[in-house]
Amino acid sequence: MARRLGRILRGFQSLGSLAFMKSELSNLPASVSLKSMVRALPSLFSSNPRDFSLPNSSWGTEMRQLYEHYNSQCEAVTDGGEEQGRLWNRLPSYNRSLKYAAGGVYLSKIIQAKARLFTRNIRDPGAAFEYVIFANKKEQRCVCIFQAGHLLEGPPGNVHGGAIATMIDTVTGTHACVHSGPVMTANLNINYRSPIPLGSTVLIESSLDKKEGRKTLVSCKVTSADGTRLHTEATALFVSIGVSQLMKG
Amino acid sequence: MARRLGRILRGFQSLGSLAFMKSELSNLPASVSLKSMVRALPSLFSSNPRDFSLPNSSWGTEMRQLYEHYNSQCEAVTDGGEEQGRLWNRLPSYNRSLKYAAGGVYLSKIIQAKARLFTRNIRDPGAAFEYVIFANKKEQRCVCIFQAGHLLEGPPGNVHGGAIATMIDTVTGTHACVHSGPVMTANLNINYRSPIPLGSTVLIESSLDKKEGRKTLVSCKVTSADGTRLHTEATALFVSIGVSQLMKG
Repeated sequence: MARRLGRILRGFQSLGSLAFMKSELSNLPASVSLKSMVRALPSLFSSNPRDFSLPNSSWGTEMRQLYEHYNSQCEAVTDGGEEQGRLWNRLPSYNRSLKYAAGGVYLSKIIQAKARLFTRNIRDPGAAFEYVIFANKKEQRCVCIFQAGHLLEGPPGNVHGGAIATMIDTVTGTHACVHSGPVMTANLNINYRSPIPLGSTVLIESSLDKKEGRKTLVSCKVTSADGTRLHTEATALFVSIGVSQLMKG
Repeated sequence: MARRLGRILRGFQSLGSLAFMKSELSNLPASVSLKSMVRALPSLFSSNPRDFSLPNSSWGTEMRQLYEHYNSQCEAVTDGGEEQGRLWNRLPSYNRSLKYAAGGVYLSKIIQAKARLFTRNIRDPGAAFEYVIFANKKEQRCVCIFQAGHLLEGPPGNVHGGAIATMIDTVTGTHACVHSGPVMTANLNINYRSPIPLGSTVLIESSLDKKEGRKTLVSCKVTSADGTRLHTEATALFVSIGVSQLMKG
């Protein structure tokens, strides 16, 4: 079970790096030191991965303005010469988690090599999920600015319920991961209040409800960019996976 | 509110056709008869849309075998010369709902024309969602055979929780639509029990729990192709939208 759980990691960059390190390291001789392994890691990527959370030409005015609003608070704040730390952290986002996979009878080497993170699998800017997540560790909350592209249609002219669920899982899962380390989704409970028109920019805000043993509870709401219209409300439950379990995978 | 609801349609083919008809018809002179409008409809499509629920070269053995199992029961059953009706119906699936959209300040004409159904937005066979839904009206249940492609990754080597939620919304929503006509998703409550490896084929079975006024409740489980392993359980609540509301949209 521990072995099984260890394989079930969320595809976030932090976990991705950890698990990637683990998988690549398993091919190295046992005598190689940790330091030299860590130095060798960047060269294991075929090229520098693109950070999809940075602005591109498809971003509309609302997306850019909100990005600037939070990004400007990512710099260190000083109060009377004393550094108070940064209010927000922008979290980078890649289109692959790692080349390591759970294996099993179904999974071919080809699938492993071609695997892409679901929310970043379309390269055409603006066509699908455009988003950036900022984390505020002090206030234990995250905010995601999400611009919904034309390939996410469900009800005519509006975003698919599954695409909204995908973003809620992504934001709350990232939040749980920032707070509790490696986690996997155990429950999502989503109430759809009003539709999100294709092409619009919305805010997804998550807040930490509770951490109890291995469980992390996060709640979340999706509103219009100006915060006046509630689109979706959700709660999410995540279960922690220890790094030791991860390394055992 | 009725007007608003009328615009919020699920992107299923049946609704798609209805709403498409409505939008295209609004450009026709009021004196055109219904019969002539219906005859004119096929020519409004630029080409015959591809039915994505038919087998293609990316389908693995399990996907094909399960497809054949249910498809063979789609033919009329006769008992002593008396036709008993078909046990199952295969539901076709397209990559666009219609050219009609909710409008509003966010939505440009370009977005409307380029919009694609979220689950059918990638044309590369086998890369994302390969699925086919069969409906059994008599037993009030649906079954979906789903092969998860390499572009749906969440946890390394496994399907993203959002992609699973997307398929659950699609299957339960189609089921609610078959039973109750036009609906919109109001709630999804999903319990993730065990991960789904990328590349595997799973069964998504939905059953009708209750129809109460405008509410339709459907429950759903996702299992391995042989039914031995439970991956996900969910309940879904849908709210009906009357055709009259739809036509007002």
